[in-house]
Amino acid sequence: MARCTDSAMSAVDPDLEAPEERRFLSTAEAAALERELLEDYRFGRQQLVELCGHASAVAVTKVFPLAALSRKQRTVLVVCGPEQNGAVGLVCARHLRVFEYEPTIFYPTRSMDPLHRDLTTQCEKMDIPFLSYLPVEVQLINDAYRLVVDAVLGPGAEPGKVGGPCTRALATLKLLSIPLVSLDIPSGWDAETGSDAEDGLRPDVLVSLAAPKRCAGRFSGRHHFVAGRFVPDDVRRKFALRLPGYTGTDCVVAL
Amino acid sequence: MARCTDSAMSAVDPDLEAPEERRFLSTAEAAALERELLEDYRFGRQQLVELCGHASAVAVTKVFPLAALSRKQRTVLVVCGPEQNGAVGLVCARHLRVFEYEPTIFYPTRSMDPLHRDLTTQCEKMDIPFLSYLPVEVQLINDAYRLVVDAVLGPGAEPGKVGGPCTRALATLKLLSIPLVSLDIPSGWDAETGSDAEDGLRPDVLVSLAAPKRCAGRFSGRHHFVAGRFVPDDVRRKFALRLPGYTGTDCVVAL
Repeated sequence: MARCTDSAMSAVDPDLEAPEERRFLSTAEAAALERELLEDYRFGRQQLVELCGHASAVAVTKVFPLAALSRKQRTVLVVCGPEQNGAVGLVCARHLRVFEYEPTIFYPTRSMDPLHRDLTTQCEKMDIPFLSYLPVEVQLINDAYRLVVDAVLGPGAEPGKVGGPCTRALATLKLLSIPLVSLDIPSGWDAETGSDAEDGLRPDVLVSLAAPKRCAGRFSGRHHFVAGRFVPDDVRRKFALRLPGYTGTDCVVAL
Repeated sequence: MARCTDSAMSAVDPDLEAPEERRFLSTAEAAALERELLEDYRFGRQQLVELCGHASAVAVTKVFPLAALSRKQRTVLVVCGPEQNGAVGLVCARHLRVFEYEPTIFYPTRSMDPLHRDLTTQCEKMDIPFLSYLPVEVQLINDAYRLVVDAVLGPGAEPGKVGGPCTRALATLKLLSIPLVSLDIPSGWDAETGSDAEDGLRPDVLVSLAAPKRCAGRFSGRHHFVAGRFVPDDVRRKFALRLPGYTGTDCVVAL
């Protein structure tokens, strides 16, 4: 490919000797891929967050199809953090609402970013309830919701720095017995090493956004989807992403 | 609904005596609906254009499924105007590329709007060819493409004012024998009355964006889709949109 120059290829981690075997991105590669989409391809954040949030909702429908749920089982708790992962969670909640699920949002630390604010308004105006606090008694959550979407922390986040209600929310999510769907990485895991994979969240479903991050290698849940159909072929080749093909107009693919 | 106040209801055309029978929006209502999405719901233009363009591409796949096309038949010519309809066309072309069609774009009058510029960059970087001129000899177009997507003029456009290459392109599109897919309204038709429905473009497929405009009543092609799954229920009720329900995670529905 003409655009796949030497300098472009340097985005790929030189430590990896067999990139053709590789499926998962290091944190630096994931950041470089996102930069490529934003700066070179001129994707907008609003556009990417919309595509990722929509695909995340579609992934939820694949594992928990509406037809298999009773009216009371359509309830989904979406826990959103203050960064980009949380923005994707807000979009996911909106599309779940459109798909006739019953999402509820817990978004304790609100971002001042206009994108987050607008996405919040969309959810509020669509009558999606926002919890003002998360019950400490996990059985209340287990009883009230069919599943929880974890959109708290993305790959760049430093769990120690988030603090406050998000940290407490993660401690609560760890104790739940209902299924957990994590967006991009299980919140609190190190995106690179997956450390905290033993003690941290143990999601049943992982939805990798754009491409799987390295920590996904330690994911042991039932379903792993990639939501990266929008990633151009040239970018996939440049980052040596070897992923199964998408079917029809599907925006997610199961690994 | 609490938000469906009297002043909000005034957006609905008072001339219409039986709004419960109505499916199609007047130009003023369509503008009011868009304003509601942008101003009240705080949807972004980038977000709406992405959702509409994606859904338009999905509609194309429903009428012309990839599996039924030979390699040579995957070619789609997307003709984009300088306004919002053209932006949706650019997004549609990109998603068609992602769905493994072979789009080519003709976008003769380029908008200076950063949104259009970014969407153009995305298509260029994805190696979608842009034609520098449209052949006057229609047989060349009939032979080269399986279908044409008309994203030239939207409901607000005044065909007389567009002029230049877009007007010439419309004259060429009128003469084609390959199928034509119009986005939102057939370009050049009056959005309200559908005048020019006899002499103007005669699309085989119409994809109404958000909701059908009144001129859609004069559409006599084979397939009419609505790409408006993102329109919140409250807004649908407020504008008395009586449309069939969407299935599963489908973003379009056939009327």
